[in-house]
Amino acid sequence: MQGFGSSRPALVVVDVQRAIDHPDWARYGPRNHPEAERNIALLLEAWRRGGLPVYHVRHDSRMPGSTYRPGQEGNQFKPEAQPLPGETVIVKQTNSAFIGTGFEETLRQAGHNALVIAGVITNNSVEATVRMAGNLGFETYLVEDACFTYARPDWTGRVRSAEEVHAMSLANLDGEYCTVLTTGETLGRVAALLPGGLEPPEVRVG
Amino acid sequence: MQGFGSSRPALVVVDVQRAIDHPDWARYGPRNHPEAERNIALLLEAWRRGGLPVYHVRHDSRMPGSTYRPGQEGNQFKPEAQPLPGETVIVKQTNSAFIGTGFEETLRQAGHNALVIAGVITNNSVEATVRMAGNLGFETYLVEDACFTYARPDWTGRVRSAEEVHAMSLANLDGEYCTVLTTGETLGRVAALLPGGLEPPEVRVG
Repeated sequence: MQGFGSSRPALVVVDVQRAIDHPDWARYGPRNHPEAERNIALLLEAWRRGGLPVYHVRHDSRMPGSTYRPGQEGNQFKPEAQPLPGETVIVKQTNSAFIGTGFEETLRQAGHNALVIAGVITNNSVEATVRMAGNLGFETYLVEDACFTYARPDWTGRVRSAEEVHAMSLANLDGEYCTVLTTGETLGRVAALLPGGLEPPEVRVG
Repeated sequence: MQGFGSSRPALVVVDVQRAIDHPDWARYGPRNHPEAERNIALLLEAWRRGGLPVYHVRHDSRMPGSTYRPGQEGNQFKPEAQPLPGETVIVKQTNSAFIGTGFEETLRQAGHNALVIAGVITNNSVEATVRMAGNLGFETYLVEDACFTYARPDWTGRVRSAEEVHAMSLANLDGEYCTVLTTGETLGRVAALLPGGLEPPEVRVG
């Protein structure tokens, strides 16, 4: 199985905060990938078990009415994406995790050249972050079933389902800015990196 | 009529090079906005007449087989987007005009805070550049009928027409990273900035 070019890929989880469950997001139709948060939890578990680097990106809106403002419940991470003590949280105010955050410098200094990105929403903060990651020269992977989006109208007013919006975004990104993977493919590649795979070490009773 | 926040908006024309006419681009279906190059020429004419700043972005690919490599005919600007002597050309190797180019610093030093962006293709280099421009804090406008794209399959394999790809891209950008305008709206706003409008000064015979 193909691995990651770098032996220590960093997991980057973008904007998995309670505000994304606000009903206003679903005004044009439901989200896709209801299993995305479970997949994010699986990715985090694998990364932590392997001792691999994890970065949590949190959107701290400055907009007065935003559900993402610090102090609002919506600003909090969802339970599946809760950082552990000692894990790095990148705080951003725009869509891209690379703007106004020093994230590029943080990654360069740590020698993390391969990024595995998941989170929300596919076509906004995730896409903005993936496009910049690829253009900045990071070896970039997007875990598509650990991302989701919502239905929305296109520029002509035609409402596109979350699946349609998601599929258009992935097509724009794959091969140009990143490689799109599933959670299963990603976990397989991570397991291949680790000496004992992803299972906890077997306890042999003499 | 609403103007631009800055009194001197800069026009940024992205990747309008001969390579975009290569038949391989149209393998899934035709492009949209056949009038885009004419509109780009109209924008350039207005900016030049008004003495407003113009930036030409050129993609110099490093890929061995690319039609955008320097020295290839495809690398040349299309006739409608040909820079005049003295106009600035920003040379890039990735999708975004802001990466590896010093373009942000060039704009900051010149005091150009409002950007009017046009070019190709809507959902790739134009979108990558618009997303970064907005996130970097520039007051960003996208002239949608001075852009175009081609048909392509989405991630599920369903072929989307150029109009569909273009409309999804604009919906992702407008209100979040930029304001989408037409060429007509843009020319109207530019005319409103200039003392005598966009017409050449009237010659009065005493």
